[in-house]
Amino acid sequence: MIRRLGYVELYVKDLERAKHFYVDVLGFLVAEETREQLYLRAVEEFDHYTLILTKNEWAGMGHFGLRLEKEEDLEELARQHQAWEIPHRRVPVGHFPGMGEMLWVKEPSGHPIAFYHDLKQAHSFTIEDREGALPMRHTHLFRGIPPLRIDHMNLRVHDVDQALTYWRDRLHFSVSEYVVRDGYTFAAWTRRAPGTHDVALVSSTGPSFHHVAYIVEGPHAIIRTADLLADAGYQEMIEYGPGRHGLSNALFLYIRDPDGNRMEIYTGDYVRDLDAQPIRWTWEEYDRRGRLWWGPAYPERFLETQPVCEKWPNV
Amino acid sequence: MIRRLGYVELYVKDLERAKHFYVDVLGFLVAEETREQLYLRAVEEFDHYTLILTKNEWAGMGHFGLRLEKEEDLEELARQHQAWEIPHRRVPVGHFPGMGEMLWVKEPSGHPIAFYHDLKQAHSFTIEDREGALPMRHTHLFRGIPPLRIDHMNLRVHDVDQALTYWRDRLHFSVSEYVVRDGYTFAAWTRRAPGTHDVALVSSTGPSFHHVAYIVEGPHAIIRTADLLADAGYQEMIEYGPGRHGLSNALFLYIRDPDGNRMEIYTGDYVRDLDAQPIRWTWEEYDRRGRLWWGPAYPERFLETQPVCEKWPNV
Amino acid sequence: MIRRLGYVELYVKDLERAKHFYVDVLGFLVAEETREQLYLRAVEEFDHYTLILTKNEWAGMGHFGLRLEKEEDLEELARQHQAWEIPHRRVPVGHFPGMGEMLWVKEPSGHPIAFYHDLKQAHSFTIEDREGALPMRHTHLFRGIPPLRIDHMNLRVHDVDQALTYWRDRLHFSVSEYVVRDGYTFAAWTRRAPGTHDVALVSSTGPSFHHVAYIVEGPHAIIRTADLLADAGYQEMIEYGPGRHGLSNALFLYIRDPDGNRMEIYTGDYVRDLDAQPIRWTWEEYDRRGRLWWGPAYPERFLETQPVCEKWPNV
Amino acid sequence: MIRRLGYVELYVKDLERAKHFYVDVLGFLVAEETREQLYLRAVEEFDHYTLILTKNEWAGMGHFGLRLEKEEDLEELARQHQAWEIPHRRVPVGHFPGMGEMLWVKEPSGHPIAFYHDLKQAHSFTIEDREGALPMRHTHLFRGIPPLRIDHMNLRVHDVDQALTYWRDRLHFSVSEYVVRDGYTFAAWTRRAPGTHDVALVSSTGPSFHHVAYIVEGPHAIIRTADLLADAGYQEMIEYGPGRHGLSNALFLYIRDPDGNRMEIYTGDYVRDLDAQPIRWTWEEYDRRGRLWWGPAYPERFLETQPVCEKWPNV
Repeated sequence: MIRRLGYVELYVKDLERAKHFYVDVLGFLVAEETREQLYLRAVEEFDHYTLILTKNEWAGMGHFGLRLEKEEDLEELARQHQAWEIPHRRVPVGHFPGMGEMLWVKEPSGHPIAFYHDLKQAHSFTIEDREGALPMRHTHLFRGIPPLRIDHMNLRVHDVDQALTYWRDRLHFSVSEYVVRDGYTFAAWTRRAPGTHDVALVSSTGPSFHHVAYIVEGPHAIIRTADLLADAGYQEMIEYGPGRHGLSNALFLYIRDPDGNRMEIYTGDYVRDLDAQPIRWTWEEYDRRGRLWWGPAYPERFLETQPVCEKWPNV
Repeated sequence: MIRRLGYVELYVKDLERAKHFYVDVLGFLVAEETREQLYLRAVEEFDHYTLILTKNEWAGMGHFGLRLEKEEDLEELARQHQAWEIPHRRVPVGHFPGMGEMLWVKEPSGHPIAFYHDLKQAHSFTIEDREGALPMRHTHLFRGIPPLRIDHMNLRVHDVDQALTYWRDRLHFSVSEYVVRDGYTFAAWTRRAPGTHDVALVSSTGPSFHHVAYIVEGPHAIIRTADLLADAGYQEMIEYGPGRHGLSNALFLYIRDPDGNRMEIYTGDYVRDLDAQPIRWTWEEYDRRGRLWWGPAYPERFLETQPVCEKWPNV
Repeated sequence: MIRRLGYVELYVKDLERAKHFYVDVLGFLVAEETREQLYLRAVEEFDHYTLILTKNEWAGMGHFGLRLEKEEDLEELARQHQAWEIPHRRVPVGHFPGMGEMLWVKEPSGHPIAFYHDLKQAHSFTIEDREGALPMRHTHLFRGIPPLRIDHMNLRVHDVDQALTYWRDRLHFSVSEYVVRDGYTFAAWTRRAPGTHDVALVSSTGPSFHHVAYIVEGPHAIIRTADLLADAGYQEMIEYGPGRHGLSNALFLYIRDPDGNRMEIYTGDYVRDLDAQPIRWTWEEYDRRGRLWWGPAYPERFLETQPVCEKWPNV
Repeated sequence: MIRRLGYVELYVKDLERAKHFYVDVLGFLVAEETREQLYLRAVEEFDHYTLILTKNEWAGMGHFGLRLEKEEDLEELARQHQAWEIPHRRVPVGHFPGMGEMLWVKEPSGHPIAFYHDLKQAHSFTIEDREGALPMRHTHLFRGIPPLRIDHMNLRVHDVDQALTYWRDRLHFSVSEYVVRDGYTFAAWTRRAPGTHDVALVSSTGPSFHHVAYIVEGPHAIIRTADLLADAGYQEMIEYGPGRHGLSNALFLYIRDPDGNRMEIYTGDYVRDLDAQPIRWTWEEYDRRGRLWWGPAYPERFLETQPVCEKWPNV
């Protein structure tokens, strides 16, 4: 019913400053721009946007979107959330540019999700002229890393086992890997797409946002990201890495935008069927090789998370 | 119901010679080895094997396998093929090492397919020791390119429109791109996984095999493949490329094994939802930019195809 | 006495068109710009420029510059050319922006050379602020491939053995590799820097220019060059490659600018001492593996060369 | 007179263990092997070897070799060291396999150097058959990273200014970059080849060895090195990085062999003429951006150095 992670909305305090960081340095493309919002996409994406930056008094996550397999799934999901007694709201066509009808949900762990099916596509796909070419075939116009496409979100929840009753049992996300500690699930990586994860759920005090990840071309693009940031005077925005996680096999570099929102620049995970047996890590294994296959020790500030919005959209 | 392309069986006349080519030079891993067969996998694959080399009097394709989403799909598919009056046969557990029950089908265009759900996995996935680590985390043991994982098959059929009634309408493959010529479909790229294609169907005189494609790490691995082959004295096995297709966006290098079986060393296609609108090319557009975005003109021998087996498995 | 190849001057008929090609698409940096000339450098170069584009009625090569080890070498070289009875002329400081005194020579095979020692440097090299940083540490401002630095020139001469009496015996260029055919030297790669060559001399009917080569970061940058050109609508400017030469080990892509001037986008040659024994190829070996280690057959137009200027500079 | 760094001799306590590390995992090639020594080279080197591993009771550096421009330089250097009253000794042909006559010197800061001109070359360089091909054109036989060629040594000396009277003023090494602290030179990078440095001299308590550096293909090979070590169970041998130095522009990964000898896996420095003005860093600039352009803070053990041999060779 759910196909994949669709987009994320981040809050930034200064839109111009954010634009310089995301567009001029990292190389995101501008899909739409208003006084209050910037709609961006990465260079190999077909969706009109996957990253919404919204001007706000505090930084953090607004909400994120999950794309459905069929339009009819919207109606069915509304019925199910009603039955599950989970707060939800229908949001009509056009709430965001090019966006179809949405179902907003406050999932049981406290994160705001927008389910949707229809979103304007970035390209027309008749190949009559250059305009119709595939999105990635405009390399002469790209700059920055550039990021290729959105990969996953990392969320913090109070109780991972409880969160899994929603994500795994109700939304039918497949667990790719998980960590068991003292008889409870410390963290779980869940997905509807065949990569490592669309949404990671990690134990913490409550709902909060840790990072959103974008895929880049390969190991050299991880290095390039650090070079770009240091060369542009954003040396302090390089938070952690390069290194490799054992769990998920991700080659990572964690960076912060000027408002503190964290992004994982990411490559090297795997493709594995949704019905494959989840990979189980004990806490000891995870601590020894799962968290870090190789790389520097993480800095304290890597443990910080950011708040998520608690308001419903104005509709 | 069908999840993805699973494996392909190629016929080779000299198994030792083929082993040198695929294992020593290209870097495939040996999963199983018998007097008559070699079972190989690429280095980031979880399945026990994705390439079967079978000793035979002539080279070409034996058959290929499509993995199902659920085990119950096998029964349902058998019922459907019965109803469609398409020749099929149940093949019991263990016909190949670690393989579960299969349904063999002679699809309407003449290619032999094995549907299956269960295949032994390459790794145990408890991370207690090095044995349990993810497949790609044994780089110190890899050699060659190495290939990462199987991507797609390219088949020749007599009538693509007719073939699509089976592939698209019955097996629910999604068409990602297609070429229209004089009112008929010249070629169609179809998939169940979210890449460009699992199975390409191209107009020709009848059922035959053009190539199987394996994904490699990036552009540098395409160059590395040509270097490896030329350095190892297999210069003649480099058939066509490097170049880029417009249709599919593939960065390609086509090579031949010592028996003439063609493999595409491949990177750079895209990820796009199965329900996205197919990309339509006219013959003129395809001829001008689709076949070749950039690269050398193809050599005559690139048009050659190889026969496919017509016999049923002995069960 | 001679340290290395310094720069090359190419003639173009339309300066704006050339600027789009070299700067906007390939990623050269603009050092100086006048109505009649564009002075460019690659992104890891310390010299103010290494490529001069001069507006002219016909395309081809104006001249090229060789940098001397010491300023005093200029006087000594003038004395020597006088003794050798080779036409030469002193050109005072400032003939080009930031250029010191030069000695212009019409070398015996007919190519115009400017010897020089002093050229303005691109960076100040006190690291007090970002301005003083190393040239390559401005990656956030780069675009295109980008090219890293000039590598070599390929010239056509009537008689290679005769040319070598000047280049090898008088200027003390070291021959790295050479091809012998029917008792004469068909081609010789000569250098003062420890790479494969600064200047290649190849048999032809008379003095003409085949290509200038710029080094790029690695195999992926060769592919990127072809992508950039095809994506920007310059598909026809990709002349030959990617492929690898056996002689010199160069991984190559030959491109043409909109005026037909040829550039080799280049990586993968070697570092070898100037006093090492030259590598000798027979014509048969060269024809079989030297010209092409792997890659497509060259197109006819790859044999075309371009004229070189016959006039002395106005001083 | 001196052309470049030639080779280094490291002491290891267990030769088999060292062989596994350097040859099986990192991918050095074995040139010669005796009971007491292993002679290795990197894959793009023409010299028979550039790394000598000698069995010894303690780890550290035996000595290192500097290659001369001409054979006659050996005699001249002996005369000069006699005049400078610096301890030196002639070592006859054949002291190491394929090695010509050497001049051993205990340089004023206390490090043992061997000057030499003649060393057996790794390849025959007639291209009649595969044996004669260029060294790098055997990629099908390579494994590991592999390292491409030796780049530089980093030595610790009691007084850098004093050391420079030998290295810069007498041996005519060119200073590429240097750091000034409280009126004295804290460190200097010196070279005879046109890269950043052949020999770095850094202030410390006395003569000791910090690291030898080998060049690898590019950023992806830095990542690959960390992967190889972690995958092979040598996670602890990854000491510091990946990161980028501001001074020298090096993209670095520092690793330790099982005996604690440090190697820098290295890419991304620059090519700059020997007569270019040295780049001057104040201590504050160096501390802020020179030591580290980006990357993690260095671990304490990165400051450790290793002893150098004090004995003369037995001749």
